[in-house]
Amino acid sequence: MVYPHSLKKLVDVLCCFPGVGPKSAQRLAFYLLGCSREEVTAMARAMVDAKDKLNYCVICGSLAEGEHCSYCSDPGRDQQILCVVQEPRDVLVLERAGQFKGLYHVLHGALSPLDGIGPEELKLEQLVRRIEEKAISEAIIATNPTVEGDATAGYLARLLRPLEITVTRIAFGLPAGGDIEYADDLTLSRALEGRREI
Amino acid sequence: MVYPHSLKKLVDVLCCFPGVGPKSAQRLAFYLLGCSREEVTAMARAMVDAKDKLNYCVICGSLAEGEHCSYCSDPGRDQQILCVVQEPRDVLVLERAGQFKGLYHVLHGALSPLDGIGPEELKLEQLVRRIEEKAISEAIIATNPTVEGDATAGYLARLLRPLEITVTRIAFGLPAGGDIEYADDLTLSRALEGRREI
Repeated sequence: MVYPHSLKKLVDVLCCFPGVGPKSAQRLAFYLLGCSREEVTAMARAMVDAKDKLNYCVICGSLAEGEHCSYCSDPGRDQQILCVVQEPRDVLVLERAGQFKGLYHVLHGALSPLDGIGPEELKLEQLVRRIEEKAISEAIIATNPTVEGDATAGYLARLLRPLEITVTRIAFGLPAGGDIEYADDLTLSRALEGRREI
Repeated sequence: MVYPHSLKKLVDVLCCFPGVGPKSAQRLAFYLLGCSREEVTAMARAMVDAKDKLNYCVICGSLAEGEHCSYCSDPGRDQQILCVVQEPRDVLVLERAGQFKGLYHVLHGALSPLDGIGPEELKLEQLVRRIEEKAISEAIIATNPTVEGDATAGYLARLLRPLEITVTRIAFGLPAGGDIEYADDLTLSRALEGRREI
C-alpha cells in the first residue's frame, strides 16, 4: 500500500499498542487526522507528560506524581494494614472498589521461575523492612489467582509469618452476578473450599 | 478511582479514540508507562508530524504530503480513467488491491440528507471540471454499497452522463472466499442481478 511517509510512520507506531493490529492502527490514524491540530497536540502532550511525571512511590511502589503516592501521604488511612499486590494497576482497581482503607505494597511482578523472576526481582526486602519498622499488624495478599500469583502468595506467607503479623489472602469464589452453571471447575472448587457458615 | 492527575489525563485522551473505552484506555496508558521515554516521545512526534505534514491533494483530494499526491504526480498512471471514492482511506484500500492504475477523485463524503450532506458538501464541482478539462474517458464510481453510497452513485451518474464519458460502478456480489450459505439477502440479490455469462 502506498502510504504517504508520515502516515505510514503513524500507523507503525500505533501498531505497537497492545491489541492494535494494522487495520485498527489505520483506523486510529485516520481518526487522528480528522482531529484538530490542537487535539492531536494535546494528546501527544498528555502521553509525554504522563511518562515524565509518573514514577513509583519510594515507599510502596504504586504510581505517584511526586516522591510519595497519594495513599502513603494520606494520614487518614489505616497505617497498620498493608495490601500486597503484583502491579501498580492493581492498586487502582482496589481503590475503585473502595473497600480497603489501609496502605499498599506493590511487588512489581510475581514469582515465575520459567521467566527468570525469582524473589530477588520482587520488592520483598522493602516489604519486610516496612513491616518491621512500621508496626504493621496485617498483610493482605492480593496476588492474582494464577499459578504465579499462588506461588507468590505461598512464598510471602512463609516469608512474613516469622514477623508475627496476621497474613491473609483475599477470598476466591464465584464472582458477584456470576452463574454457578457457567463457573469453571477451579473457581467452583475454590468457592466450595472457601465456604462460610451463614 | 484515585488516578494520579497525569495518568487520568492520559486515560481521558486515549478514551477519545474510536472503539477505546475506559478499560482499554487504561490498558493503553499502562502500556505507554512501560515504554521508554524515547518510545513515547517518538509516538507523540509521529502523531503531531502526521497531522502537520498530511493534507489533501489539491487535484484529487486524496492524502498527500505536498501539494499533489503520489498518484496525481505519477505520469505512469492512466490519465484517462478516474476512480471516484468517498474517503481518502478508500484510495489506500484500492491501491492495496493493486488492480487499478488510473487516477482518483475523493468526494470526502456521500450524500446523506438526514445528516445535512447535500451535493454542495462533496467535491463535485472539481470532479466535473477535471473531467471536462482533462479528456477523461471513464469514471468508475466506487462509493460504498450503502444507502448513502448508492444515492451518491445515482446522483453522480446523472451528473456525469451529459459529459459524454463512460460512467461505471464497481461490481457488487459475493466476496471472494465467501460462502453462499452465509450471504445476506441483499448481497445475494445483487450477486444474481450482476450475473455474467461464463
